[in-house]
Amino acid sequence: MATGLEGKRQNKHDVNGTQRKHPLTVDGILLDRPLNDPKGGEQFVQDAFQVILDEAIRKGTDVDEQVCEWKEPDELRALLDLDLVDAGEPSEKLLERCRDVIRYSVKTIHPRFYNQLFAGLDHHSLVGRYITETLNTSQYTYEIAPVFVLMEEVVLKKLCELIGWKNCDGLFCPGGSMSNMYAMNVARYKLFPEIKKRGLWELPRMAVFTSKESHYSVTKGAAFQGLGTDSVYMVKADERGRMIPKELEEQISIAKSKGAVPFLVNATSGTTVFGAFDPLPEIADICEKQGIWLHVDAAWGGSALLSKKHRHLLTGIERYLVNEIKERPGFRLLMEPQFVNVCFWYIPPSLQGKEDTPDFQKNLGKVAPFIKEQMVKQGTVMVGYQPHGNNVNFFRQVLVSPRVSLDDLDFFMNEIQRLGSDFQPQ
Amino acid sequence: MATGLEGKRQNKHDVNGTQRKHPLTVDGILLDRPLNDPKGGEQFVQDAFQVILDEAIRKGTDVDEQVCEWKEPDELRALLDLDLVDAGEPSEKLLERCRDVIRYSVKTIHPRFYNQLFAGLDHHSLVGRYITETLNTSQYTYEIAPVFVLMEEVVLKKLCELIGWKNCDGLFCPGGSMSNMYAMNVARYKLFPEIKKRGLWELPRMAVFTSKESHYSVTKGAAFQGLGTDSVYMVKADERGRMIPKELEEQISIAKSKGAVPFLVNATSGTTVFGAFDPLPEIADICEKQGIWLHVDAAWGGSALLSKKHRHLLTGIERYLVNEIKERPGFRLLMEPQFVNVCFWYIPPSLQGKEDTPDFQKNLGKVAPFIKEQMVKQGTVMVGYQPHGNNVNFFRQVLVSPRVSLDDLDFFMNEIQRLGSDFQPQ
Repeated sequence: MATGLEGKRQNKHDVNGTQRKHPLTVDGILLDRPLNDPKGGEQFVQDAFQVILDEAIRKGTDVDEQVCEWKEPDELRALLDLDLVDAGEPSEKLLERCRDVIRYSVKTIHPRFYNQLFAGLDHHSLVGRYITETLNTSQYTYEIAPVFVLMEEVVLKKLCELIGWKNCDGLFCPGGSMSNMYAMNVARYKLFPEIKKRGLWELPRMAVFTSKESHYSVTKGAAFQGLGTDSVYMVKADERGRMIPKELEEQISIAKSKGAVPFLVNATSGTTVFGAFDPLPEIADICEKQGIWLHVDAAWGGSALLSKKHRHLLTGIERYLVNEIKERPGFRLLMEPQFVNVCFWYIPPSLQGKEDTPDFQKNLGKVAPFIKEQMVKQGTVMVGYQPHGNNVNFFRQVLVSPRVSLDDLDFFMNEIQRLGSDFQPQ
Repeated sequence: MATGLEGKRQNKHDVNGTQRKHPLTVDGILLDRPLNDPKGGEQFVQDAFQVILDEAIRKGTDVDEQVCEWKEPDELRALLDLDLVDAGEPSEKLLERCRDVIRYSVKTIHPRFYNQLFAGLDHHSLVGRYITETLNTSQYTYEIAPVFVLMEEVVLKKLCELIGWKNCDGLFCPGGSMSNMYAMNVARYKLFPEIKKRGLWELPRMAVFTSKESHYSVTKGAAFQGLGTDSVYMVKADERGRMIPKELEEQISIAKSKGAVPFLVNATSGTTVFGAFDPLPEIADICEKQGIWLHVDAAWGGSALLSKKHRHLLTGIERYLVNEIKERPGFRLLMEPQFVNVCFWYIPPSLQGKEDTPDFQKNLGKVAPFIKEQMVKQGTVMVGYQPHGNNVNFFRQVLVSPRVSLDDLDFFMNEIQRLGSDFQPQ
């Protein structure tokens, strides 16, 4: 660009032709050149990238490597030697530290990691994240983020299309909790715009409705936004974790009878534990009739919008697990899954046939922690467990990574059998 | 690890010795192997990393390259071809897209980028961010983030040491706005614990105090947390942007006289525009006497805690700019800077000597936008400007990158002179 070059040419010349009048050092540091060394820095980035590629990306996705290498906190603290010191360290030492950070971290990208609501590795999106980190900009204006502002526009438009809305707009939020809080804030502002200036004091009490299975951020948001957790009316869910519309109507009546103004229903598409989808059409009808803002928390299940054509990628492989669970001795499904959360118990040989004994449930509740502890220490697989309502501890396996094969699922079930074989009731 | 290997050996064997009973395909997709290709993915990451290293890291920090390559939105939209399509694209095309994303993005790591409260590139921290992105975990438990949980512990301990506190704890927050909101939430909970359950309704009105120069997130937080912006009492600042303790006392009296309960003073260490530091000892005395929670927003100036020994790295180079501004014809400093924000006007030749004419201020206010527009279009330098109170548009140069040399600052001032030379008052 001619104009750019024009600027460049002036680089070495002072337009006034004057010599620099002030000293060029502070505390012995010469300031007429940059303070750090870009060539050394670039070499470090290049070497560290090779470590990341070998140790995290390759080994982290290799089924013959461990999901995690468990160390007790004190042992790990000593191994890592994290104390912050004033002096720098040579690159080789820093690369060794990078290797250690990766080695002792959990490999969430491993095909046998089913522990959280995220898993797997998409190499392309990882590159996108590297680019974003390198460019290190904020997204607030076109001036400072021209490419990303246009990208945001395109992605929001596509999401609106997928939902099927003609006139719609959106906002990317820093996570599901914040999205639910934004919804709460927008809904109450719509009802009482004076809230922004005057606060809640002069307004009537307000009520928000959400199912017992919904995310805890709804309650947290009510506390954080000054409404108080008492303003949250918990609606009962059916046996598969879906909000019961009749119960919603019931709770709305109760809130009104207490003088509270209903202002928000939070429906969930994909609950945390069961992956349940609340019945949106029925809930929407109730909200429309009553004039209540409907918010859908689709932080987990929203990806189903993308799966019309490629539904099998999302909900294929957990079918073939579900069938295995039904047929393998000792495995018992908690419920038919609606999404990629598969919840089940494993009944070890020492408890099989004792389903009717009085201590069975108490002992069954100890099986998942027993298996999980060994699993993590051996690093072969990672999966979460929890109790829920009257159900004692069960495994919740989350299947989202396209790297998971049927072999991995066989291995997973075999591991549970292997590790559970020693379980003895007390 | 023996136990790990034990698990691995079972990989290919079914403990029951049974054959798989269920079909292995869904919609023609074979599920007994992973659905994506790790070798191809790894190659893409490797190739893309080379693009990032060459185009973003090397060119982005090279003074002979542009800070930005300006395109109007429509032109850029056409160049980038961002429409989302169903079909995939070959790696070579994707790498070309990576190159384009980098090319048309602003290089915030460039030594001549002074536009925001961030700049520069630390190669080591960039590697840290690549590792974090690759490992892709949450930080909530030791189980899922053993290394990072221990790191957090060490860094918090060090920060407490730097502040000089013996018994202290901390929390990493997703940005300055959220930190200010957390402070507000904690302070009101300390005063009225019942707020969490019952909300604000039964409580007296509350008051928060902050200076006019403080970040807008204090007001935003008051609205978001149900207090309302009326609950925020703005305290006057002196001519250099520091909260005036006497004015704070005055505002506390006013709030009390209106029946509001003072619960939080937000002091700022490093204001957004001037980089001013509120007088903490005096403010702390007032808070202690009145029993009000003191929060310090040190999102910008907190780094000064690190600079006892290396103060020159933070506040050295902007001294030499300040002296140049004082001596170069046409440059006029708004105030002596307290931090690394240097605020000044440039008076172009067409306005020099006309300081006492009635239209001078109006015309001066048009200079910074005139220069900035050309600057961005030519991509040689980026710096922010704004009006503030009675001061018409001035430049705010932020000097945080150790890559900035005196040559860069000479270039910066020459550019302002060059681009301002054509300015004509209207």
